[in-house]
Amino acid sequence: MDLNVYLQERIEQIDAALDRWLPSAAILPGRLHQAMRYSVFAGGKRLRPILTIAASEAVGGHIGQVLHAACAMEMIHTYSLVHDDLPAMDDDNFRRGRPTNHREFDEATAILAGDALLTEAFRLLMDSEANQGIDPLRTIRVAETIARCAGSRGMVGGQVVDMESEGREVDFPILEYIHTHKTGALILASVQVGGWLSGASDDQMNALTRYAESAGLAFQIADDILDVVGDQSELGKDVGSDQARGKVTYPALLGLKESRKRADELHARAIASLELFGEAADPLRELARHMIDRNS
Amino acid sequence: MDLNVYLQERIEQIDAALDRWLPSAAILPGRLHQAMRYSVFAGGKRLRPILTIAASEAVGGHIGQVLHAACAMEMIHTYSLVHDDLPAMDDDNFRRGRPTNHREFDEATAILAGDALLTEAFRLLMDSEANQGIDPLRTIRVAETIARCAGSRGMVGGQVVDMESEGREVDFPILEYIHTHKTGALILASVQVGGWLSGASDDQMNALTRYAESAGLAFQIADDILDVVGDQSELGKDVGSDQARGKVTYPALLGLKESRKRADELHARAIASLELFGEAADPLRELARHMIDRNS
Repeated sequence: MDLNVYLQERIEQIDAALDRWLPSAAILPGRLHQAMRYSVFAGGKRLRPILTIAASEAVGGHIGQVLHAACAMEMIHTYSLVHDDLPAMDDDNFRRGRPTNHREFDEATAILAGDALLTEAFRLLMDSEANQGIDPLRTIRVAETIARCAGSRGMVGGQVVDMESEGREVDFPILEYIHTHKTGALILASVQVGGWLSGASDDQMNALTRYAESAGLAFQIADDILDVVGDQSELGKDVGSDQARGKVTYPALLGLKESRKRADELHARAIASLELFGEAADPLRELARHMIDRNS
Repeated sequence: MDLNVYLQERIEQIDAALDRWLPSAAILPGRLHQAMRYSVFAGGKRLRPILTIAASEAVGGHIGQVLHAACAMEMIHTYSLVHDDLPAMDDDNFRRGRPTNHREFDEATAILAGDALLTEAFRLLMDSEANQGIDPLRTIRVAETIARCAGSRGMVGGQVVDMESEGREVDFPILEYIHTHKTGALILASVQVGGWLSGASDDQMNALTRYAESAGLAFQIADDILDVVGDQSELGKDVGSDQARGKVTYPALLGLKESRKRADELHARAIASLELFGEAADPLRELARHMIDRNS
């Protein structure tokens, strides 16, 4: 398969769906809806929603069963970036080469746009039209998983520990907590949700979970490495910014060589866990490679 | 009935349930869970969860069917206060006589504690134990309603328009938009959810909706009036602070006398809409009076 063609197709489907489901800027309050859309349509790679769709495909499902959940994952991911960029948090002025939400609008609007994106994600997960043909118990389980992975014991928890660790000596267990929670939890939810909504068996769910845990951590290690060796123009943010902030990273704790080795091992584990799916998991295989083997 | 006894009992039940459902400060990250609990247990009047319970009682339901949803409403209300108090928003240092969340902790923690409370509310609405015996389609409808009322076309929308209106000439339709969205939407959801989870009929739902819309707006007008004539020590915040900020209020637009008249009319409408419930709606009746006839 050609991953670029696959990604391009999926991105177009996701963007069209996000455009349909996000309130238009013509609806009051226009500026709020504009701010929500500004960050959702800021050139994101749509990794999480694509993982949801690819996980569905691996178990024989189709995009129509999971597109709403895929879009909800992207809304949650986007809200987390908007709040993360705020002056009180990472205080970033640019993301992917464009002004961050609070720079383009203002701080209050960015806070509220993030709040509204998170809320809209859960509304969409409950949307009766989007859930047609889905067992209501599955709808509930999906939303519960996403909330758990996004909340204080998931993504938000990871952000807090990451923040608390800035400029402090951090050991390996804390570094792993940060990575598995701050980015890993949402990647895990994205994959699991795709499986559940397409009727995955317990065996299939176990395999998808192993895949997501390994690929998610590899992704984060690759991100740490990229911060040390990346090209600023491709990255769209400052190289070495993690280091400047005193953020703990894999290379800082294990060195660059050992970090790369760890990422490769996790990648191999992710691939191995997909065996039972055969060719249907080719998109997930290509995505795992893509997640650790990237420039930005 | 004795409203004070009723309120005291309900507050105890709600507080015990919130304590059970909120992650303990012993769970990592402790400081985040501490910050969430700090604002949830800050002496709130629990109006929204009590409305949920009272609406359930009006249609012959009981607290066990709605306690989780009642607590979710309180978590959402609390998150909105935490974010509202932030320096970029209302920049308040005190709430109910205690330092606001970002003053007691820090700004980043307050943003994330708010995010986590909102997320936890939806997790709780999906919690399988809390939803035992409830038709899954009802669970989904309840969460969809809450998300709609809390999001960009509900509460968050109201906050944005309120913020945009500060220091500007505002006409009556805008003032009504702010009131019906910023506070009205969540009060409406609290009442509707109590009815639905306890199996209300269409007629009962229509009556509850009329009640909530009238009582909710009366509550907000009373709040505006209180800001002009209230006693600072009972209020726990600065009297005249709306005026100082150039916020639009009912008294500013209609005068104090006409505002009081409007609140009384809405109160009468709220009471009238409860007729079909008989004595079972006594708590809702007392609450409507309580909502416009208060000192703080």
